[in-house]
Amino acid sequence: MKPRFAIAVLLGSLCLPALAQFQTPEAAIKYRQGAFSVMAAHFSRVAMMAQGIQPFDAKTAAENAELVGNLSRLPFTAFGPGTDKGAPNRSKDEIWKESAKFKAASDKMVAEAAKLEAAARGGDFEALKTAVGTLGRSCKSCHDDFRGSKRE
Amino acid sequence: MKPRFAIAVLLGSLCLPALAQFQTPEAAIKYRQGAFSVMAAHFSRVAMMAQGIQPFDAKTAAENAELVGNLSRLPFTAFGPGTDKGAPNRSKDEIWKESAKFKAASDKMVAEAAKLEAAARGGDFEALKTAVGTLGRSCKSCHDDFRGSKRE
Repeated sequence: MKPRFAIAVLLGSLCLPALAQFQTPEAAIKYRQGAFSVMAAHFSRVAMMAQGIQPFDAKTAAENAELVGNLSRLPFTAFGPGTDKGAPNRSKDEIWKESAKFKAASDKMVAEAAKLEAAARGGDFEALKTAVGTLGRSCKSCHDDFRGSKRE
Repeated sequence: MKPRFAIAVLLGSLCLPALAQFQTPEAAIKYRQGAFSVMAAHFSRVAMMAQGIQPFDAKTAAENAELVGNLSRLPFTAFGPGTDKGAPNRSKDEIWKESAKFKAASDKMVAEAAKLEAAARGGDFEALKTAVGTLGRSCKSCHDDFRGSKRE
């Protein structure tokens, strides 16, 4: 058996998709932080329009909301076991101790981001405002429960 | 004129989209680093299949390549003037001194990422291998010219 093939068989047989996708805990941490940073930037552009701080432009709102929707589906895969340490990050132990609750919070965020995407695509300003508020509260609620002080 | 409206008019009149999208240089730096981190993770999943380290799965390759394509279009907007400092980063001054060359390198990366996406969607393994090689060389070439040691 060639070494490369052996590695591939080994990786395949582990059945740990979240872990197998990242070489190290540091890689997983950087990935999820990156996905959250980019998502937050695009959400903030939609939110600034919804709050009247920036002028509402339906096309820009839809483009940014689509990115929010796409990016929202990425970070959860990078919270595998053992990724609490390895690089500075703000995860709380509750992420792994209350993993069903964390998964539910993550699923809610993905669902609310999809609603924001749909509202922005529809072009209705009031619907967009509602969706921004709901997604914003979903972010805050998860941060309250699962995001703490910085640790290494 | 209400203050919020005045701010919106001011932001609109600046005509600096790259700067106006980020509140601070730190926000721009975190954004582009985040986009590159997430893009690199998904590119690496395609590359590992192309190199035979992971088994080739056309659907997985296409999903990851699509993310590479979408993410490749994001970072360039976050290299506005004044974003060389503000958070630890590896930008070289050449990014702003040779901005046309940097823009061309960025455009090439976006074009090669789009080719990777098309090749992966097509499902042909040899085409995918070629596209992985070309995009990988585009990454390396830009890093050689424009990425240096870490600075604050």
